[in-house]
Amino acid sequence: MSLNHMQIQSHSHPYSATEFESVRAAFESLDSATKTFFLVDQRVAELYRSQLESVTTPERLFTIEASEVAKSYEQLEPVFCWLLSSGCQRSSQLIVVGGGVLQDIGCFIASVLLRGVRWTLLPTTLLAQCDSCIGSKSSLNISRFKNQLGTFYPPHEVRLAPEFLNTLTQQEVFSGLGEAIKLHLIDGESSVGWLREQIGAAGAEKSLPLREIVWRSLEIKKRFIEEDEFDRGIRNLLNYGHTFAHALESATQYAVPHGIAVAIGIVCATYFSERLEMVPAGYCAELAAWLRPYFAEQVHRLRGVDPAALFAAMKQDKKNVGQQITFILTRGAGRMEKSPLDIAVAQDLLQDCLTADIWRG
Amino acid sequence: MSLNHMQIQSHSHPYSATEFESVRAAFESLDSATKTFFLVDQRVAELYRSQLESVTTPERLFTIEASEVAKSYEQLEPVFCWLLSSGCQRSSQLIVVGGGVLQDIGCFIASVLLRGVRWTLLPTTLLAQCDSCIGSKSSLNISRFKNQLGTFYPPHEVRLAPEFLNTLTQQEVFSGLGEAIKLHLIDGESSVGWLREQIGAAGAEKSLPLREIVWRSLEIKKRFIEEDEFDRGIRNLLNYGHTFAHALESATQYAVPHGIAVAIGIVCATYFSERLEMVPAGYCAELAAWLRPYFAEQVHRLRGVDPAALFAAMKQDKKNVGQQITFILTRGAGRMEKSPLDIAVAQDLLQDCLTADIWRG
Repeated sequence: MSLNHMQIQSHSHPYSATEFESVRAAFESLDSATKTFFLVDQRVAELYRSQLESVTTPERLFTIEASEVAKSYEQLEPVFCWLLSSGCQRSSQLIVVGGGVLQDIGCFIASVLLRGVRWTLLPTTLLAQCDSCIGSKSSLNISRFKNQLGTFYPPHEVRLAPEFLNTLTQQEVFSGLGEAIKLHLIDGESSVGWLREQIGAAGAEKSLPLREIVWRSLEIKKRFIEEDEFDRGIRNLLNYGHTFAHALESATQYAVPHGIAVAIGIVCATYFSERLEMVPAGYCAELAAWLRPYFAEQVHRLRGVDPAALFAAMKQDKKNVGQQITFILTRGAGRMEKSPLDIAVAQDLLQDCLTADIWRG
Repeated sequence: MSLNHMQIQSHSHPYSATEFESVRAAFESLDSATKTFFLVDQRVAELYRSQLESVTTPERLFTIEASEVAKSYEQLEPVFCWLLSSGCQRSSQLIVVGGGVLQDIGCFIASVLLRGVRWTLLPTTLLAQCDSCIGSKSSLNISRFKNQLGTFYPPHEVRLAPEFLNTLTQQEVFSGLGEAIKLHLIDGESSVGWLREQIGAAGAEKSLPLREIVWRSLEIKKRFIEEDEFDRGIRNLLNYGHTFAHALESATQYAVPHGIAVAIGIVCATYFSERLEMVPAGYCAELAAWLRPYFAEQVHRLRGVDPAALFAAMKQDKKNVGQQITFILTRGAGRMEKSPLDIAVAQDLLQDCLTADIWRG
């Protein structure tokens, strides 16, 4: 097969995303001249044990059980101490293998250890491959505050092995699709048309053309992050659905996988947009019908959540300024807009949204 | 008086260093449109209580007792939680008032809180004013590892009030002079000539022209940090004396003020240089005689230290690559060189250096 490749500009250093034909191929061509340390998702380490053993030793391998608790400021101390006591130097390299949680942990550590060390990311989930692996961001929790710490520090190299996607659960595939759908919606009608056609033609989730979806999604994201890496302007639009998604995750103690929360959040943002007459009547119901298969198993959590807790979490959103809550709303595919709303307005809309017909099949 | 001003380029954002005629003037013209949070050295907060009270409230003020323990990863958690529970947002601003420890803490927090918030630094020690306040660096300890974490994130504004220098102890002034002397030595003969003349003419420490020394030092440093902010090349030279200084501080549990450790470290680096025939015989003794008044009260700590502990600390230096220890040595004023030495060579030279005549009056 012809392998995909992409070069990304960053304030810190340019980097590449490259496709490999197998997990083994991605591991075996790693730079062996530098001292390398592996930070690996525990489940991934079990699934790909033989491939890992061929490139590292137990002393250079640290596995982490991926969870919201793991990606907290407090929980990182033993990882830092392992690296420092194992002789990690500025010239060393960190190899991070896993999904979003491992990426957050690895990125934060690489960015502050010795004021920055080289790191390579091997994203293992669909969500990490099609979205989070590029864009430089890390997010950490601290105490009871979710995702309030972080850095901008891209990997020096991203290695994508489609083979990792073979061992995902259906929910993990749906979660990745949530972010892929978001990116295609932000890009515009023709991207949405392409994606709906692919998904429609696939019939079953097993035959989805995930490689193509991954690389098309990355191409869309690349344009936003290269123009506005620090998320001060146009990159904000990638947060379409995220004000709701982060709040839903927080209010359900992260029971909803991120990309599925995003799919639900996209519907919420579109409901708000329709109520504010930014899109025609019926637009939201049509979008909800398309996304329903992906969020159907999780939507009961939205209906079971305490609206006050959901709203309190929204007020913590990093994008907020002063007494307003910042949403990314839409005027249609490719026409997202940053829309700060007064708290009272947002609260009323949210109340209606939670009980609206759009959530029913 | 005519107030000094300087603009500094950085990968993150350009920033300014500006002189103010008083502490009150520096505080009162702070941007009041943004929500501001004050992080202040406890001793400074007591000395300048009335000036602080005129610009902030107890809820927006957090004081820290400056110490090595305070600048550790683990100790920062309550500061982050105070900021987040007090409603700090991306549009808020952190005002950091203190010396090197407060700067390290404030810089690290500002760089990772909400992926970076605006911060203003008011350096209160001579060392912070003449050296550390520009250059973007933060350093934190974690567990038993000293200065192994950090970020590059300059303040958005540096405000220098010479009035702060009036309340320094003699040791604090000497500590600042250590870094000022280092910068002038790195710059070259004519800078060294100017500085020696100023110090000679002053007679007593009280009449030193500190303002001029501060701004001349900053002008020298600015050239290095603008060319190599990330410390991958020429900026390394600013570490002249620092491989020894950091090790001495670490081996004495930070009993020696940083700039005084640097003065001692400069003499050590010059001793190594002379033994390696990079400078003529007698060069080091002459330099040591000039610096002796500033390190005299602390030199007993060098002679009391366990050489093995000192050497072990040197092996932890962030600049080291592989099995060598990286020193910045000299061929004379303005001619510093990055010089990695094999461990055995470095250990022998250090042993001789500790018992050399240069330390005697």
